[in-house]
Amino acid sequence: MAIIDISLPLDADTPTYKGNAKRRPKIERTRTLSEGANESRITLDAHTGTHVDAPFHMVEGGKTIDLFSLRYFHGLAEVVEVRGVEAVEESHLLPFKNRFSEAEFILIRTDNSYTDRNREDFIYLSQSGAEFLAQQGIKGVGIDSLGIERNQPGHPTHRALLGRDILVFEGLALEHAMPGRYFFRAYPLLIREGDGSPVRAFLESITP
Amino acid sequence: MAIIDISLPLDADTPTYKGNAKRRPKIERTRTLSEGANESRITLDAHTGTHVDAPFHMVEGGKTIDLFSLRYFHGLAEVVEVRGVEAVEESHLLPFKNRFSEAEFILIRTDNSYTDRNREDFIYLSQSGAEFLAQQGIKGVGIDSLGIERNQPGHPTHRALLGRDILVFEGLALEHAMPGRYFFRAYPLLIREGDGSPVRAFLESITP
Repeated sequence: MAIIDISLPLDADTPTYKGNAKRRPKIERTRTLSEGANESRITLDAHTGTHVDAPFHMVEGGKTIDLFSLRYFHGLAEVVEVRGVEAVEESHLLPFKNRFSEAEFILIRTDNSYTDRNREDFIYLSQSGAEFLAQQGIKGVGIDSLGIERNQPGHPTHRALLGRDILVFEGLALEHAMPGRYFFRAYPLLIREGDGSPVRAFLESITP
Repeated sequence: MAIIDISLPLDADTPTYKGNAKRRPKIERTRTLSEGANESRITLDAHTGTHVDAPFHMVEGGKTIDLFSLRYFHGLAEVVEVRGVEAVEESHLLPFKNRFSEAEFILIRTDNSYTDRNREDFIYLSQSGAEFLAQQGIKGVGIDSLGIERNQPGHPTHRALLGRDILVFEGLALEHAMPGRYFFRAYPLLIREGDGSPVRAFLESITP
């Protein structure tokens, strides 16, 4: 079984939503080996780097991340690629529909995987795309930008998914993930009442 | 397949090494839904809560956590219980030796699972216990205290394991994990040059 790591490294250069410097992770070395041990402190926005959004992030009364069973964070995934568009619409996803019947996660590789993830005009999933994916009987949707939408009024993409307890995975590093079927894993930290969590996301190859 | 979560929740009450308040996680809500979205910032000691130690934590020139393949963070595990001792010695582990031949991880449940994890005199793994486990051909050792030793001079327990690239998992919540064989998973965040990482650790039941 091959494993493809689809996580962004966490350091001072981690890309953030629209390049916002305030959202960059801070990693301080608090002790060194000469003092007894290398130790560090991590300050991390829950929505920075590779992470998962809980419904509570965008939905009134939505579930927090600690309330989901670990089973929600793994399963069969289809990686699909949509290039050369600014927003991924239902029409771009329809051609893959027959591949979605067994999928528990749908991960979308876009031009974000080939450009600077700090850009403000990143590729996003439109409301029509989200409404379509929400009908596919899945646990989660992932994308290769730091946001699944660009602060659209009312956040219709987030709400179409999170409003149905479909998890949203953002900041996936899909450049080395060829389109196809995999087993996806991305478990959150057990953050009490968390609106989201950083995750280590990866794909396992599956034998057909 | 049953899943047993063996992670401590992260919040203001998370126990810390010897109850050190400075090591408690800080979780601030930075935005609320009325401002557009619930968002938060997490400040976390790499060695607080359920976490993994990289060799770099205690070994000169040791590997950092980002340099380990994800395969190092899962595999067959034996949960063993040693009660009524202050330090787990080789002599306490020898009776389990025949169960260790296929194990990739050995997780030790002690009185820590039944008492306050903030205590200064927590149960730890002695040097003799660590040297013995280091001979079992494993990927990692886990324990139910926030430290695998109590700041012993020269950190012989950590060094016996980390010096051989055997990972150390601390802060495991083993109270609901009956002794026996499981499949263990606990993947770190991809922290560049990290001396350790918080993890979501869990056990999967296996059919014999």
